[in-house]
Amino acid sequence: MEVLEGKQCILPALLARQRKFRLLLVKQNIQQKRIQDILAAAEAQAIPVKYVDVAEIDAMTKGRSHGGLAAICTPKPAFEIEKLIELCGKLPAPPLLLLIEGTEDAQNLGYTLRSAEALGAQAVLLKKHVWNFDGVTVSRASSGAFERLPLVQIENAEKELGPLQRSGIKFYGCIAGAKRAIYDVDLTGGIMLAIGGERRGLSGALREMCDGFVRIPMITGASSLSLSHAATVVMAEVMRQRRQLQA
Amino acid sequence: MEVLEGKQCILPALLARQRKFRLLLVKQNIQQKRIQDILAAAEAQAIPVKYVDVAEIDAMTKGRSHGGLAAICTPKPAFEIEKLIELCGKLPAPPLLLLIEGTEDAQNLGYTLRSAEALGAQAVLLKKHVWNFDGVTVSRASSGAFERLPLVQIENAEKELGPLQRSGIKFYGCIAGAKRAIYDVDLTGGIMLAIGGERRGLSGALREMCDGFVRIPMITGASSLSLSHAATVVMAEVMRQRRQLQA
Repeated sequence: MEVLEGKQCILPALLARQRKFRLLLVKQNIQQKRIQDILAAAEAQAIPVKYVDVAEIDAMTKGRSHGGLAAICTPKPAFEIEKLIELCGKLPAPPLLLLIEGTEDAQNLGYTLRSAEALGAQAVLLKKHVWNFDGVTVSRASSGAFERLPLVQIENAEKELGPLQRSGIKFYGCIAGAKRAIYDVDLTGGIMLAIGGERRGLSGALREMCDGFVRIPMITGASSLSLSHAATVVMAEVMRQRRQLQA
Repeated sequence: MEVLEGKQCILPALLARQRKFRLLLVKQNIQQKRIQDILAAAEAQAIPVKYVDVAEIDAMTKGRSHGGLAAICTPKPAFEIEKLIELCGKLPAPPLLLLIEGTEDAQNLGYTLRSAEALGAQAVLLKKHVWNFDGVTVSRASSGAFERLPLVQIENAEKELGPLQRSGIKFYGCIAGAKRAIYDVDLTGGIMLAIGGERRGLSGALREMCDGFVRIPMITGASSLSLSHAATVVMAEVMRQRRQLQA
């Protein structure tokens, strides 16, 4: 079980219906108007609501910004790769998937998920060690995208991603040394963008699977983009190219 | 005076030569090889180096990641708007400037500066209330871009930005409700991109000054991009358009 705190985390989790909620804790004398939407969502899913002293919520949360709300629920479930392949086959448009092999921290992972949702990715795939995050921090930074987006956990790239690739998704690795810029590669088909960790870059296993590599043009001699900003720029370019096709 | 800690902050600050350093503190028995570049930069600028017990460095830093290095120096100086106008007039290519009216936190401000440098912005302008940041956190997240990029402090938009605009720089406001997408507007001339805070958006004063407005196309009903990610996507689009002109 996990403890979610604050409206900003709990409401998207309730609405996404991916977790199972055991109990919603509300501080006594809370302003009812402020939590109408939370209570309505809890009622619709028959989740028990308990009004408690704020000290009880303080004790079970990290206590910085719960605003009188806490929820006990199952962790965000991982999405199965088989389900993802099925989902991609049914989409009306070519899929856009993002695979992340590393991350700076939980907050940046959250921002990356937020960007992925805003820019139309259908799912994000995370290497197993990236999965070991603080759900509350990720969720907050993600603006709820963490709760809504299908997240797939990858342990063995070759074994698990092989079927996805054979289903017709092209894998593009984003690496600094790639010959071709993102602007010079057709990204309008069904693709998975693979991005490595900031320190180690894309793993050998992933590089071997890639159908192509792309880089983001940057100023030489300057700092490079962070992982979450690089992922965002590439996804925005996918959206730009697809948008242009429709125009 | 400010205290910088850790090689990751101190080395770019020394190399950028924008701050004045009073003293470099190094823990006794530090591995000399690891700080050769720091010591060389300090010597070149005749900065005194003092070897001290690590407890002394612990006491003056936030103590998490100084790695045996601390420096006492002046804060990063603000760049004058007059100097910016002069700088823009001398550039071989059209200037790209970024104005930020709000930020999520110091870390995200740092990431925004990192993106700005990587994507070719010549300077970042910050509203005065944004300027009130934790320099160490900003610097660390910025990968040193904070030390290198000219930063201009803006208090009165109309008064201070008027001369910049009259010098020929076009102001583009990035707002969610803009009619035109960034892909449909010519961003190859000398421009300043203005981005508001996440909560309040672009201020009225700035909106009135803008020559045009642009939006980033996103999925409706999803979360939106964070301020630093939005700024990064727009700057990347500027670079794409300018790159295409040269091709």
